[in-house]
Amino acid sequence: MFSPSIEQLIAAFKKLPGVGQKSAQRMALYLLERNQPAANQLAHALNKAINTVQHCQQCHNLCDQPICPLCTNSKRNQQLLCIVETPSDVIAIEQSGSYSGLYFVLQGHLSPIDGIGPEHLGLEQLKNRLSQQIVKEIILATNCTIEGEATAHYILALIKPFDILATRIAHGIPLGGELEYTDTGTIAQAITQRSIINH
Amino acid sequence: MFSPSIEQLIAAFKKLPGVGQKSAQRMALYLLERNQPAANQLAHALNKAINTVQHCQQCHNLCDQPICPLCTNSKRNQQLLCIVETPSDVIAIEQSGSYSGLYFVLQGHLSPIDGIGPEHLGLEQLKNRLSQQIVKEIILATNCTIEGEATAHYILALIKPFDILATRIAHGIPLGGELEYTDTGTIAQAITQRSIINH
Repeated sequence: MFSPSIEQLIAAFKKLPGVGQKSAQRMALYLLERNQPAANQLAHALNKAINTVQHCQQCHNLCDQPICPLCTNSKRNQQLLCIVETPSDVIAIEQSGSYSGLYFVLQGHLSPIDGIGPEHLGLEQLKNRLSQQIVKEIILATNCTIEGEATAHYILALIKPFDILATRIAHGIPLGGELEYTDTGTIAQAITQRSIINH
Repeated sequence: MFSPSIEQLIAAFKKLPGVGQKSAQRMALYLLERNQPAANQLAHALNKAINTVQHCQQCHNLCDQPICPLCTNSKRNQQLLCIVETPSDVIAIEQSGSYSGLYFVLQGHLSPIDGIGPEHLGLEQLKNRLSQQIVKEIILATNCTIEGEATAHYILALIKPFDILATRIAHGIPLGGELEYTDTGTIAQAITQRSIINH
């Protein structure tokens, strides 16, 4: 129905997360019909990102330089290290404006079924970094899934030899969330992890 | 927060229809982190489409050749011409499998406010085509909006000199639609345009 080059463009858009046939058609036709400069911009940005973006040698986050701006920022608390699964998690935490320490991005979680072991998450490098004794606290911010919890436990065992405080981000009812519409697992967690109110 | 090349990629994705900041972030990070081949494929498909895709000289649809496959297909009914606003409309009608004639794509609708007049819709070319007396019926399939209706009326005046049947696609309750949830304008249209049942 479409000409080959439009078909190929639609197929390429369909590879993106959350994009199906209809959305891909709409994107392709929008760019070709109404916004050719945006098409050029996207092609250019893709080529540049493919050739430039790399993993920071220190925290494994995505960046343009060998060491990312977060790691080189001397104003950040060098004694705090937050361990997350993906670069998206770094963004989410940075946007919350609640954290001023450094990060370590695992680029995934332990998953023996998918063949992802400690060596794929750069845990050896994390151990080396912690052995330098600069970091005083690690915040385990892996996801609250079976794999995320398993990864957090693995890292906990890893840091045993060092005198480092380990903390886990709180899990419970989200702000503005209603008990009525919260899943049972989250409610159970919120009750188990309840805190004392000082009054 | 992001490195410049990731920022630029996110900004480029945000130009796509239906894509906001979060979706654009997700797309960019997905391609860079997990699917570099898809990023290459998209960049390549964009470049190819930008350089290849043009408007068919006969029907103004998007295609790779000067004349599109629909126009060169001799099996299609040359006496029927369906007039639509955009290439997406051609796809929607083709997917319905209910039409075997040819198309004429206006690439928009009359809109004096936006400075879009008959000359921008290729109506002169449409007139020339109709004057060849091959087309016996035109189906006006412009959208059921004020601009779409105005465009349909303009074309109706245009074809007056020729001996051509003009029809308008039916507007009414969609299949599977419930009266209860249908807007009043559509219900009014469905009642005005009611048809006699033979029994």
